Amino acid sequence: MKNKILITGTVAFDDIETPFGSSGKVIGGAGTYIALASSLFTKNLAIVSIIGEDFPEKEIKFLNSRGIDTKMIEIIKGGKTFYWKGKYHENMIGRDTLTTELNVLEKFNPIINSEFSSSEIILLGNLHPFVQNTVINQCSNPNRFIILDTMNFWMDNALNELKDVVEKVDLIIINDEEAQQLTNESNIFNAGNKILKMGPKKVIIKKGEHGSIYLDSFHKYILPAFPVDSLVDPTGAGDSYAGGIAGFLSTKQEIGFNDIKQAMIFGTLTASFCVENFGVEGLRNVDYEKLVSRLKIFKSYIT
Amino acid sequence: MKNKILITGTVAFDDIETPFGSSGKVIGGAGTYIALASSLFTKNLAIVSIIGEDFPEKEIKFLNSRGIDTKMIEIIKGGKTFYWKGKYHENMIGRDTLTTELNVLEKFNPIINSEFSSSEIILLGNLHPFVQNTVINQCSNPNRFIILDTMNFWMDNALNELKDVVEKVDLIIINDEEAQQLTNESNIFNAGNKILKMGPKKVIIKKGEHGSIYLDSFHKYILPAFPVDSLVDPTGAGDSYAGGIAGFLSTKQEIGFNDIKQAMIFGTLTASFCVENFGVEGLRNVDYEKLVSRLKIFKSYIT
Repeated sequence: MKNKILITGTVAFDDIETPFGSSGKVIGGAGTYIALASSLFTKNLAIVSIIGEDFPEKEIKFLNSRGIDTKMIEIIKGGKTFYWKGKYHENMIGRDTLTTELNVLEKFNPIINSEFSSSEIILLGNLHPFVQNTVINQCSNPNRFIILDTMNFWMDNALNELKDVVEKVDLIIINDEEAQQLTNESNIFNAGNKILKMGPKKVIIKKGEHGSIYLDSFHKYILPAFPVDSLVDPTGAGDSYAGGIAGFLSTKQEIGFNDIKQAMIFGTLTASFCVENFGVEGLRNVDYEKLVSRLKIFKSYIT
Repeated sequence: MKNKILITGTVAFDDIETPFGSSGKVIGGAGTYIALASSLFTKNLAIVSIIGEDFPEKEIKFLNSRGIDTKMIEIIKGGKTFYWKGKYHENMIGRDTLTTELNVLEKFNPIINSEFSSSEIILLGNLHPFVQNTVINQCSNPNRFIILDTMNFWMDNALNELKDVVEKVDLIIINDEEAQQLTNESNIFNAGNKILKMGPKKVIIKKGEHGSIYLDSFHKYILPAFPVDSLVDPTGAGDSYAGGIAGFLSTKQEIGFNDIKQAMIFGTLTASFCVENFGVEGLRNVDYEKLVSRLKIFKSYIT
């Protein structure tokens, strides 16, 4: 039996412009990307989130078809779903937010049902740290493994609440600029070591197209990114990476250094499928078989 | 018996400012860095270059003490050695040239002696492509393996001559921005494939702190950089990388994909020692034993 994964994060509408095209209004959100990536590894997972009545029922059914339990996605009658519109720069790395409409997200108070409060793996996707903390407090499994994915927005706007969450998690996943901002340290390995002192037992720092690094008190691991032929839309790459990690780890009874390394490889691959298409389309079209074929290619590039 | 390495490149004075300190006037130059890195693997190597009478004899003796043959370093009586002064930006990646005095380099016409014209490995360090071509034309070994290291300066100022050289080499080592500039292609793997069509059988693209990638018609390899605790001075990192590669390859009778991978690992390590100190001091203080200790650490990070 695979371990249960409880995912929290936004289920939302995105509207993405890149130098090469526009997505129009499509489904997105950290929770959606994470769950789709995790669902490549297990069918024992749920999202806790909030949406408005405008969110298409067929997309919820699509998530269900992937084995994702959506009973904890609260639907607010007459409410509107969180909406984000952004535009990527020419380099496809930087991006500007054009519109953010929190809508129903403003009222989000996650309630974890008894089925998933005992989850072994808890993935806190990008959300207000206060909300992430509310989820932690409802999770009762003493052997739970908590993964935190965060963003610089919360460092700027809710640093103390964020630090409260950071202290409690087993693994934090953060990008290089955020790690530098959080620690005021430009060398990312030194930044990672400072984050370890803030509470997490394990740290992953993402470097986008340059891969990711892992640190704990005893080990380091450096992994390149998978070189995609064509980068179409980076939205959700970090979420898909975290989702791939959680998905792979849910198949393990104990989480050792070798499992983390393998999980990072799978996270890298789920993210690579994500960025090859607009929105969640990349994840919609991938299955475990395609993932394993790409795994073989990736391993030939890095060993 | 190890294969002979013939290195061409500047032997020069550098004057380096970083946000953390200044080197003052120290010895440097592509030829110097390359040869010092290569000399960790073999004592069967020579530099062809040109200096003025102002270049300290004790530094030539130091090169000799590392087994580097300096008979082809021409000393111009009354001449002044090539001098470069530069200042690194806050990020330690970008840099501005403050002064360039070509001095004796303007008259450089390399003459390869009979001992080294039969070299198996020829490393063309940063120099005018016309001069690099003159060296190639004097090398008679039909099984020679030619490695080219170049810079964007020559793309801007001598593109046709550079393309003539690129066409003739076995392995080109180039950084990511240069590869993008040379091919007008932003995806570096695609850029690498375009460079393969320009003549070289093998391409290495350097990404600084993010490592390097390798391509030939059949293989790809992606290698992270070694994470140094403290980056003091990036000057010579690329030269040390190329020198480490040439040095390692000189110990092999045939050069296959596995040898290239191993060579890139050693190049990464020689570069890591280089950047930990100002100028050539990092390479002065390293020996094969230290290199092998770091190899073990690096392998534990990447496998």
